[in-house]
Amino acid sequence: MKQYIEQNKERFFEELFSILRIPSISAKQENKPDMVRCADRLKELLLEAGADMAQVMPTSGNPVVFGRKIIDPSYKTILVYGHYDVQPPEPLEKWKTDPFEPVIHDDAIWCRGANDDKGQLFMHIKAFEFLVRTGQLKHNVKFIFEGEEEIGSPSLPEFIKANKELLAADICLVSDTTMISDKVPSINCGMRGLAYLEVKVTGPNKDLHSGHYGGAVANPINVLCDMISSLIDKDGRITVPGFYDKVVELTPDERKMLARAPFDIDEYKQFLDINEVKGEKGYTTLERTGIRPSLDVCGIWGGYTGQGAKTVLPSEAHAKISMRLVPNQTSAEISKLFMDHFLRIAPPYVKVEVTPYESGDGFLIPISSDAYKAASKAIGEVYGIEPVPSRGGGSIPILAEFQKVLGLDPLLMGFGLERDTIHSPNESYLLKQFFGGMESIALFYKYF
Amino acid sequence: MKQYIEQNKERFFEELFSILRIPSISAKQENKPDMVRCADRLKELLLEAGADMAQVMPTSGNPVVFGRKIIDPSYKTILVYGHYDVQPPEPLEKWKTDPFEPVIHDDAIWCRGANDDKGQLFMHIKAFEFLVRTGQLKHNVKFIFEGEEEIGSPSLPEFIKANKELLAADICLVSDTTMISDKVPSINCGMRGLAYLEVKVTGPNKDLHSGHYGGAVANPINVLCDMISSLIDKDGRITVPGFYDKVVELTPDERKMLARAPFDIDEYKQFLDINEVKGEKGYTTLERTGIRPSLDVCGIWGGYTGQGAKTVLPSEAHAKISMRLVPNQTSAEISKLFMDHFLRIAPPYVKVEVTPYESGDGFLIPISSDAYKAASKAIGEVYGIEPVPSRGGGSIPILAEFQKVLGLDPLLMGFGLERDTIHSPNESYLLKQFFGGMESIALFYKYF
Repeated sequence: MKQYIEQNKERFFEELFSILRIPSISAKQENKPDMVRCADRLKELLLEAGADMAQVMPTSGNPVVFGRKIIDPSYKTILVYGHYDVQPPEPLEKWKTDPFEPVIHDDAIWCRGANDDKGQLFMHIKAFEFLVRTGQLKHNVKFIFEGEEEIGSPSLPEFIKANKELLAADICLVSDTTMISDKVPSINCGMRGLAYLEVKVTGPNKDLHSGHYGGAVANPINVLCDMISSLIDKDGRITVPGFYDKVVELTPDERKMLARAPFDIDEYKQFLDINEVKGEKGYTTLERTGIRPSLDVCGIWGGYTGQGAKTVLPSEAHAKISMRLVPNQTSAEISKLFMDHFLRIAPPYVKVEVTPYESGDGFLIPISSDAYKAASKAIGEVYGIEPVPSRGGGSIPILAEFQKVLGLDPLLMGFGLERDTIHSPNESYLLKQFFGGMESIALFYKYF
Repeated sequence: MKQYIEQNKERFFEELFSILRIPSISAKQENKPDMVRCADRLKELLLEAGADMAQVMPTSGNPVVFGRKIIDPSYKTILVYGHYDVQPPEPLEKWKTDPFEPVIHDDAIWCRGANDDKGQLFMHIKAFEFLVRTGQLKHNVKFIFEGEEEIGSPSLPEFIKANKELLAADICLVSDTTMISDKVPSINCGMRGLAYLEVKVTGPNKDLHSGHYGGAVANPINVLCDMISSLIDKDGRITVPGFYDKVVELTPDERKMLARAPFDIDEYKQFLDINEVKGEKGYTTLERTGIRPSLDVCGIWGGYTGQGAKTVLPSEAHAKISMRLVPNQTSAEISKLFMDHFLRIAPPYVKVEVTPYESGDGFLIPISSDAYKAASKAIGEVYGIEPVPSRGGGSIPILAEFQKVLGLDPLLMGFGLERDTIHSPNESYLLKQFFGGMESIALFYKYF
């Protein structure tokens, strides 16, 4: 595959860039037409790469791109999952280059979606193309690329249920996660689930003069801060009653195995420019994101946020709150617990509303499976070192659905790195990982 | 004056509207040209009303409009203070009409600045015009209208110091406050001071994926909420050390006198659509805004605030915090105490910055003064009931400066009502108060 990459590099960039340039932001209404454009382009790329069939299929939300090549019904079938939607690029002022105009410098591709997930799903199309064109493909391959992953895949469960036969396979192969580093390859064998809610605190029915009313009327921003502050105690534990009830505690042995993953806390702090880490008492940093749930305010707003000093006692305050969940915590249950708790702790002088958004459960992947072993061998060959099994802190909510409805175990061959700052300004994807990923995927087909 | 108003009503509206239409928002850089336009128009209006001289005078910030009519140096001189700048109109979507296109309906003028302070300062110009044109003026009158009150009058102290002689007078007459109601007229005999600061909490040096980092890295929004929440304790007291050291406690008798002001807590709650009030333990609602200091978050922002569910552990969180101060608390001292405290309570896993903005001290007005008595008689005559002395929760920081530098006691004849929702969307000014104010001011000249 190395040689094939060398010969086709420029074409690969051109093709990838053609999808990176489309601002397929699923969170924004105004980008609806871009979703369709991006899906159409992916269909073309699949056909060009060698798919027998590829089509853009409607859902109740953004379309799904489905493609396949069936060699022999008796062969194993690999379902490749990816998503073509991206996170909003905001805050725009922090981008050093146009978020939707890919550029290559410093050995990386820079663009929104360069890694998450356009760059990663593209590796699969090209590994597939290589196997087809060199006559090495010995599996049936199906591709499903959705356009709503970043907003919680609201339409996909229904689509999966309605298309069980079309999607039938032996494994669900995904590249949408990170490795520990480009020197320490790893394979994700577990991911956290997600519950995401928006809260609104309303005080007085209009913005008030903070001089005339300040001190006598509850300020919804202050109240929201009180409420948010009460959600995590001084030991870093989430105070929602019942929150930890189903969390599986790992055995000392299991924790020891996870602790083998190389991790340098000083490098970590330096990378983030922080003096200290913070999290749940009694757990290491890797455990805090790997095996423990968490709660974060993803956004907060209220009152006057423009320049200058406007005095106001605002009517409303808002926050978006996400919780990352570990196996056995279901997002439906946790969303419910959170809602009940947040409404219960609302003081009598404000009104509180809670709206649940996206959600999805976490899952575990057995490292004893054939798929894991094949991936481990493939990555080991490309990187010259056996990959470490790791637990990812992120969430791909829909994978639990593939497992439940289609019985497909996911295999997470992710090639992103922390330095890629996905979901943030200046997202990038290291060329070494981009090409190393293609090679690893092609070898995975060989060993699986 | 009643008859004069009747005859000139339409012209009054036209003239007032000509200044209301100018978006003289002092907090915004882009409105600089509007400040000059508004000042020029006020100069014209003063000359047309009968001023001997009127001019737009430069300051280090927005210009000051100064005008005067000197009848006889042996007469008493009244300095009328007002401000032609207004608060930003945001949130725009809550306005029922264009914020800068005045309309009259439901017996009120609706527009940003209709009350605060263009509508109120305009009453003075017209009362003056009436006295001049009917030959009843028996005082020297000076006008000073500034363009930076809403941002804390940063340039005016210097201007006052540099123009002591020009501004010399016996009293500083101001209409920039409210009455208890249009049935219960009142005169403000004390106002709170103001300290306003912006705070910034920085966690990691970039926005992070809340899945990969959530639970292991301090989230600056959560930290900001913790910090803000800690600023007020469960008894509603501000926790900044030293904050209450200089607050003058009123005697039981003084509190009894203040309690005479009619106040209906149910009406108050209904007006604001709240179930309960909230404030410092041991004080009534009127005391909480009249004689006690307060702390409010005027704005907060951080992370993703657009539509949809973006998961992010943001790099920064911000808030604008105002404190209303009572006599003997100086804003300089309180700003310093707040800054020191806020930096001291910053946990080690974030960086915190505090920027002080506008500030000003509170003050008291003796109700035994000739000016107060004349105002009381004038308002009593117009409203048919003797006005109540009250304490205003708001702040006009610059008045302490007039007192200190020019020795001028302020007299606050404010005709605004709570229903006017100044600083908020749909600001209005009741015509009854607009015309009643003109009459009261004209009578004040008679009795002073």
